[in-house]
Amino acid sequence: MTAPFPFSAIVGQDEMKQAMILTAIDPSIGGVLVFGDRGTGKSTAVRALAALLPPIKMVDGCPVNSAKVADVPDWARAGRKLKEVPTPVIDLPLGASEDRVTGALDIERALAQGERAFQPGLLARANRGYLYIDEVNLLEDHIVDLLLDVAQSGVNVVERDGLSVRHAARFVLVGSGNPEEGELRPQLLDRFGLSVEVTSPQDIETRIEVIRRRDDYENDNTAFMLRWQAEDATIRDRIVTARKALRDLTTSEANLRDVAALCLALGSDGLRGELTLLKAARAHAAWRDDTALTRSHIRAVAPMALRHRLRRDPLDEAGTGARVGRIVEETLG
Amino acid sequence: MTAPFPFSAIVGQDEMKQAMILTAIDPSIGGVLVFGDRGTGKSTAVRALAALLPPIKMVDGCPVNSAKVADVPDWARAGRKLKEVPTPVIDLPLGASEDRVTGALDIERALAQGERAFQPGLLARANRGYLYIDEVNLLEDHIVDLLLDVAQSGVNVVERDGLSVRHAARFVLVGSGNPEEGELRPQLLDRFGLSVEVTSPQDIETRIEVIRRRDDYENDNTAFMLRWQAEDATIRDRIVTARKALRDLTTSEANLRDVAALCLALGSDGLRGELTLLKAARAHAAWRDDTALTRSHIRAVAPMALRHRLRRDPLDEAGTGARVGRIVEETLG
Amino acid sequence: MTAPFPFSAIVGQDEMKQAMILTAIDPSIGGVLVFGDRGTGKSTAVRALAALLPPIKMVDGCPVNSAKVADVPDWARAGRKLKEVPTPVIDLPLGASEDRVTGALDIERALAQGERAFQPGLLARANRGYLYIDEVNLLEDHIVDLLLDVAQSGVNVVERDGLSVRHAARFVLVGSGNPEEGELRPQLLDRFGLSVEVTSPQDIETRIEVIRRRDDYENDNTAFMLRWQAEDATIRDRIVTARKALRDLTTSEANLRDVAALCLALGSDGLRGELTLLKAARAHAAWRDDTALTRSHIRAVAPMALRHRLRRDPLDEAGTGARVGRIVEETLG
Amino acid sequence: MTAPFPFSAIVGQDEMKQAMILTAIDPSIGGVLVFGDRGTGKSTAVRALAALLPPIKMVDGCPVNSAKVADVPDWARAGRKLKEVPTPVIDLPLGASEDRVTGALDIERALAQGERAFQPGLLARANRGYLYIDEVNLLEDHIVDLLLDVAQSGVNVVERDGLSVRHAARFVLVGSGNPEEGELRPQLLDRFGLSVEVTSPQDIETRIEVIRRRDDYENDNTAFMLRWQAEDATIRDRIVTARKALRDLTTSEANLRDVAALCLALGSDGLRGELTLLKAARAHAAWRDDTALTRSHIRAVAPMALRHRLRRDPLDEAGTGARVGRIVEETLG
Amino acid sequence: MTAPFPFSAIVGQDEMKQAMILTAIDPSIGGVLVFGDRGTGKSTAVRALAALLPPIKMVDGCPVNSAKVADVPDWARAGRKLKEVPTPVIDLPLGASEDRVTGALDIERALAQGERAFQPGLLARANRGYLYIDEVNLLEDHIVDLLLDVAQSGVNVVERDGLSVRHAARFVLVGSGNPEEGELRPQLLDRFGLSVEVTSPQDIETRIEVIRRRDDYENDNTAFMLRWQAEDATIRDRIVTARKALRDLTTSEANLRDVAALCLALGSDGLRGELTLLKAARAHAAWRDDTALTRSHIRAVAPMALRHRLRRDPLDEAGTGARVGRIVEETLG
Amino acid sequence: MTAPFPFSAIVGQDEMKQAMILTAIDPSIGGVLVFGDRGTGKSTAVRALAALLPPIKMVDGCPVNSAKVADVPDWARAGRKLKEVPTPVIDLPLGASEDRVTGALDIERALAQGERAFQPGLLARANRGYLYIDEVNLLEDHIVDLLLDVAQSGVNVVERDGLSVRHAARFVLVGSGNPEEGELRPQLLDRFGLSVEVTSPQDIETRIEVIRRRDDYENDNTAFMLRWQAEDATIRDRIVTARKALRDLTTSEANLRDVAALCLALGSDGLRGELTLLKAARAHAAWRDDTALTRSHIRAVAPMALRHRLRRDPLDEAGTGARVGRIVEETLG
Repeated sequence: MTAPFPFSAIVGQDEMKQAMILTAIDPSIGGVLVFGDRGTGKSTAVRALAALLPPIKMVDGCPVNSAKVADVPDWARAGRKLKEVPTPVIDLPLGASEDRVTGALDIERALAQGERAFQPGLLARANRGYLYIDEVNLLEDHIVDLLLDVAQSGVNVVERDGLSVRHAARFVLVGSGNPEEGELRPQLLDRFGLSVEVTSPQDIETRIEVIRRRDDYENDNTAFMLRWQAEDATIRDRIVTARKALRDLTTSEANLRDVAALCLALGSDGLRGELTLLKAARAHAAWRDDTALTRSHIRAVAPMALRHRLRRDPLDEAGTGARVGRIVEETLG
Repeated sequence: MTAPFPFSAIVGQDEMKQAMILTAIDPSIGGVLVFGDRGTGKSTAVRALAALLPPIKMVDGCPVNSAKVADVPDWARAGRKLKEVPTPVIDLPLGASEDRVTGALDIERALAQGERAFQPGLLARANRGYLYIDEVNLLEDHIVDLLLDVAQSGVNVVERDGLSVRHAARFVLVGSGNPEEGELRPQLLDRFGLSVEVTSPQDIETRIEVIRRRDDYENDNTAFMLRWQAEDATIRDRIVTARKALRDLTTSEANLRDVAALCLALGSDGLRGELTLLKAARAHAAWRDDTALTRSHIRAVAPMALRHRLRRDPLDEAGTGARVGRIVEETLG
Repeated sequence: MTAPFPFSAIVGQDEMKQAMILTAIDPSIGGVLVFGDRGTGKSTAVRALAALLPPIKMVDGCPVNSAKVADVPDWARAGRKLKEVPTPVIDLPLGASEDRVTGALDIERALAQGERAFQPGLLARANRGYLYIDEVNLLEDHIVDLLLDVAQSGVNVVERDGLSVRHAARFVLVGSGNPEEGELRPQLLDRFGLSVEVTSPQDIETRIEVIRRRDDYENDNTAFMLRWQAEDATIRDRIVTARKALRDLTTSEANLRDVAALCLALGSDGLRGELTLLKAARAHAAWRDDTALTRSHIRAVAPMALRHRLRRDPLDEAGTGARVGRIVEETLG
Repeated sequence: MTAPFPFSAIVGQDEMKQAMILTAIDPSIGGVLVFGDRGTGKSTAVRALAALLPPIKMVDGCPVNSAKVADVPDWARAGRKLKEVPTPVIDLPLGASEDRVTGALDIERALAQGERAFQPGLLARANRGYLYIDEVNLLEDHIVDLLLDVAQSGVNVVERDGLSVRHAARFVLVGSGNPEEGELRPQLLDRFGLSVEVTSPQDIETRIEVIRRRDDYENDNTAFMLRWQAEDATIRDRIVTARKALRDLTTSEANLRDVAALCLALGSDGLRGELTLLKAARAHAAWRDDTALTRSHIRAVAPMALRHRLRRDPLDEAGTGARVGRIVEETLG
Repeated sequence: MTAPFPFSAIVGQDEMKQAMILTAIDPSIGGVLVFGDRGTGKSTAVRALAALLPPIKMVDGCPVNSAKVADVPDWARAGRKLKEVPTPVIDLPLGASEDRVTGALDIERALAQGERAFQPGLLARANRGYLYIDEVNLLEDHIVDLLLDVAQSGVNVVERDGLSVRHAARFVLVGSGNPEEGELRPQLLDRFGLSVEVTSPQDIETRIEVIRRRDDYENDNTAFMLRWQAEDATIRDRIVTARKALRDLTTSEANLRDVAALCLALGSDGLRGELTLLKAARAHAAWRDDTALTRSHIRAVAPMALRHRLRRDPLDEAGTGARVGRIVEETLG
Repeated sequence: MTAPFPFSAIVGQDEMKQAMILTAIDPSIGGVLVFGDRGTGKSTAVRALAALLPPIKMVDGCPVNSAKVADVPDWARAGRKLKEVPTPVIDLPLGASEDRVTGALDIERALAQGERAFQPGLLARANRGYLYIDEVNLLEDHIVDLLLDVAQSGVNVVERDGLSVRHAARFVLVGSGNPEEGELRPQLLDRFGLSVEVTSPQDIETRIEVIRRRDDYENDNTAFMLRWQAEDATIRDRIVTARKALRDLTTSEANLRDVAALCLALGSDGLRGELTLLKAARAHAAWRDDTALTRSHIRAVAPMALRHRLRRDPLDEAGTGARVGRIVEETLG
């Protein structure tokens, strides 16, 4: 199986790439929703992300990728050594059963054979990483409900016949979807931290560049991967640096006021927008190597943080992003 | 896992907090329905409630939290010692199976292995505490029917193949919901004692305060929890005092007349409204440390006790609460 | 668990109470349908009925409450002693499975363990008593069909894999329902002997009395029960006396003519109305301690015996009862 | 359990009683459909039929009531003695499973325990008798299909996992239904030999007589049964005599012509009508003790043999029977 | 069980009888669809066909009626002797499960008891014969798909859990249906080689003849069967002769041109019509004992070969057959 | 079972045959969609393809047809010898279960009997070959989703109870369908590389030729196969030659520009069209034995590469192919 297309070799699609980088800097921003036509490279981008992300340290053999031996769940068998592995990016296929997502608790087998009763699922494997759902708008409702519960609590609880098993399940959701094939419930939209839209490039030079790179990638994979390796490494290093800088970034009273004023002016439901905007702006400042949060950082990320919170379906109206921009202009000057 | 957000640190939302406190003083008031937009902190408030409530004394190991050894069900294994534990606040997830809610009676296993056949469910764990349902308007009908049966009788009966198991299941239902995502059956509405509505604050200072507290809570959890500990303790103590005072509170003939006149004027169906209003007013009087029930107490709680009994859907019309207020004005002066 | 609210302490609702008393005097009248808004005390009345009814003599341990040792089914294990127990009033919960209603025939277990294969259900427990269905209009069709079969034949037959078990199942159905939440099939309506409607009282003194009694019942249960014990006992004694008087009550040719003329004038479908009216009138005469059936007895019970037989849904038109009254007036003078 | 109401004590309803008698004389006429309002005594009549029919001779213990030892199916265990039993009248309850109707072939049990794998069902018990379906218009489609297959072939075949069991299943279907509650598929209608309609009597003397008899039946069952015993016996003897006479009854070319002309004039679909009319007319002649078939016999049974073959639903138009009469008049003079 | 009605005793219905004979001469013509009102003797004709068809030679005990020992499937147990048996005509009941149709592959049993895992189904029994589906328009879609697959490939493949079993399943489908009760998918229509329509005779002499024969058949079965035996034998012999003659029948270029011109003029979809018309015309020539295919043979079978290929539903328009006739007239003169 | 109809004996249908040949030269072009009326030989063409394709070398006994011993999956048992086999063309029947498609993972059996737990399915057998779906527009959605996942990744992953098995599954999808019987989701359309339409020939000579060849094929199969063997071999050899030539084919900047300009002018969604067009044009050049890609190659394959990407349903409008042609004309001159 060939290596995924390099993240830095993706032509254009800057907002999508930026959103993915911000959640890599601060995972508590919570999820990226990527909307766009088919064939615009959404899946390619997510698979590219897997190769880009900084590695994590985990206990060797731990099914939930625990960082410390103390965090290994009691139902798991793991060693005591730490090892470094790529940040997990796990695919959640559309038709996955609940058992496959949450893990399966098989009491009969446990009783009959004295084996471990819990077989961890995709949520276990996604801990400390990313969970990717292609065509999130087609996902079954009960799986959506389940994901939202776990995403909010950071814990996956599987109960059956009075027994229960739990493990950490902190992950960033990345969802892609084609707006033509089904809407998202507003409640689900609100749980994604950021949203971006991708479209087919409309100028011929860009399209030629896309075909050329794709064709090179398929025809001479090794050479192509080598060519882009360095650029991916640069991004990875900047993410690691930004993560550390985030802790020392200063936030002023004026920043809070800007954030609140903006959300009030936009009439976004609830208060989740404010907090996400604040975090995304900080991650952006850290990415830019700035030490204090400023209005320009807020302005830069406002569209991706707020666009999907304006009304039932951000897709009814092509200009939702533009509307955010205009109100940012009016509010923050 | 971090401690929940402190109850007293919730900005505004006074009616919701008041309703929760009243049911803590007199659980027979029966349930609180919290309606509001997404992102207004409904879930946060319920999780805060769990930390606020006074502890209960229970038999060590009893699966239904019995107060006395004599109350431990015969199918349970428990010790004889009493211990003090937090009042249980149990989450009922939307997709929970009936077995998980009521407990499962597994006859095959019992016969085959001589083990106990009953595995208690969420209703057992909620006994003497709270059962929380997020998005109660999306709950499946057969689970709703089951909850209403148990909530009314205070007993959970599980029957299978001619065997039956029963245990006490007295709890206060707390339901939250987004009125945009589905109506409640009037019959279900009527079973909730109180209902409140929560909205996003519309003034910028409040919103800034919300973000600041939330941001502080996330960034320096330990310091934040310490800062609010005392305020939570004060509320807890007032609840304990009010519970005792409730028994000695006097109720006059005029109080009964006020309550009946109000419900008649409002045209509320049935007589459940009157009784709830009377109880809520008494709990409010006890909370305020008054020794006799007065018209002002009735007036204070009338909206939350009656709002949801006026017509099929209290949400059709933004002003249901206002209408209660106006009629309270006309009737009680 | 506290004692049910006393039957005689129910404020008003005379027609409902009278209908229940008549079926207690002559169970072959067959079932009472109680329609009304939520919160009007329908459930309370049924639970009160359980405490009011005269006790029955039954074989100790018989699962179908047999009156004689000879009547104990061969699949049951019972002693030979008679004992006196309260008349059973059994609840049929909305979601009850067919197995739970009819009893379950478990052939595997029988073959494997040589145990008794039949576990009796709710129909067994209701024999010689009452079967109560709250919200009968929401009951599933296949359960309704099953109940009608058993109610008509007085026998419950459970068959599986070629084995069959049968037992007596003679009971009075009491159904309550809220007309706003679903209609009853005409066929089901016709199988109920009597029907009554209950409404919330509209005068303030009655409502105050209802609240006061309910509040007293909740706050000082023991004293309240004592206060009403004697009144309940008086009703119980009158029922027992009336049952005996019923056998000697004379019925004239003119009575039959009145009954037939009335049903013909009302255009009620079929002939079930005539027979029920005749029986209800006789039970009413016995209750009033009269020795001969007269036109006034027929007049008194005609609305409750005929109201629900006039057309598809007696609830479409508030005045069905009134219409019966008017035609009684015209026909019987 | 009390004895069924006597057939001869049924007031009026002559056509229904006549149709049942004709199929008792010649079962190959094939089935009676009884349509009418609820409460008109349809079920009563079928249960009365069971007591009226002449007894049959069968092999003791044969599950399909075989007349000769040679006819006992090989999967059955039966003795070699003959005994006389009542003609079976078997009830097919609406919710009966396919297994219960056809019998169940339980291969696992057979393999595991070496027992007989086939448990005969209702079709076995109905062999050589009647199968009664109350509310035939509510029967599930797959059961209807199954009944039609068996009714046509006279054989019940149960197959599972490559094994198959077969037994004779010749029975007369009696179906009752309320036309207001669902139509019958024309294909099903056509399979019934005869159809009759019953209505509530509209004159007061008849209604009084109905109530009186029913009341007497309930109040003094033994005396009532005695009083009507002789009349039932007379009918039974006439049926037995008519069965024998049937073989020697002469049918002329003119009879065939009358039958064909009538069906052609009525435009009945297919040729099943002709054959049924011929057979019913012959049975009627035998019942009247005549030795040759005449035009008057054909005229007498034409409405019940043809009414339900005229168009999709014989019930759309009250006068279907009348229409048959008029055309009989025009065609046969 | 009595012998089926003789094929030659069927009054009229010549086109249907001819179509059945043609497929007996050349089974690769593929299937006959018989449409008509209920009661027109469709089922009778198919059962008559079973008795008419020439016998086949098969390996004794072979579950798929193999002609040679080498063709017996490896999963079957069969002897080595050949025997002569009637051509199989197998009934496919409407509710038949997929397992019953295709045969069942029971791996558990095979593993547990070392028995043969495959129990052949109806398709096995129909090999080298006819498969009859009454009311083919009511057949479930997944069974239809399955039949079409097998009918096209001549092979039945059953797969489960990675094991697979296959056997020859070459049969002629005969479907009957009532056009009033459901349409056929065009795809299914196209797979039938021939289609015919049957109607009730409208002249009285024919109808009298039908009743007389049917009445004689029922009243004196043995005599009736004897009377028609010779006529059935004559037809059988002609079929056997025609089969042999078919191989030597000459087809000219002009014949091909006629066939193509006709289908083009009719605008029939696809090319299946041409090939069927050619084969049916050849079988007809062989039946008539002619040695060369002529235009008159094509003309004779064109309606039954093409009628159902003209448009979605050949039944929308009574005159589809007539339209074929007219275009035959115009095209072939 | 007879040999399939030879590919080269198919009359006309050049575009379909060309599309199949192109994917044989470069399988990464990805799938052919064949739309057309029933009876136009779609199935025949696919079965012909199986016989035409060049053989592959595979490890003897490998269930996924691996080319090298190192590629045999660890769950499979295979030898070490290589053998040459026909390129697999696997049929996916409409009703195939998911287990049959993906293979079944049977944990119980594995645990109980120590056998291999995985039974490979159709996707395993299709590896390195073709997967054919007749009536792809009727395929169930969950199977479609599954196929798209595997087709994109080239890997089949089966997971159950925490175990997982994976194997290579690289195949070319060939789908046929009748546009009258259901649309394809645009997402599915986009995944097919090429699409072609087939229709019945409308001139009589072609039709005669089709019948003649088909008739010859059926009547003298051996002679017919011999006659066309050489032509099939010629095509096979050209495919093998073209595969090798493909590696050295030069692609200019102008080629890329032409491809991008064409897709931009057509407004096709996404960028999958460009890449497919480029690959198909190259395969076409190799087939024609040209050494450099030119505008004429692009022009030749543009309709089949782009026709189905223009809008939701390429079938709404007969002239989609024509529209592609016109724009090719305008863009490439």
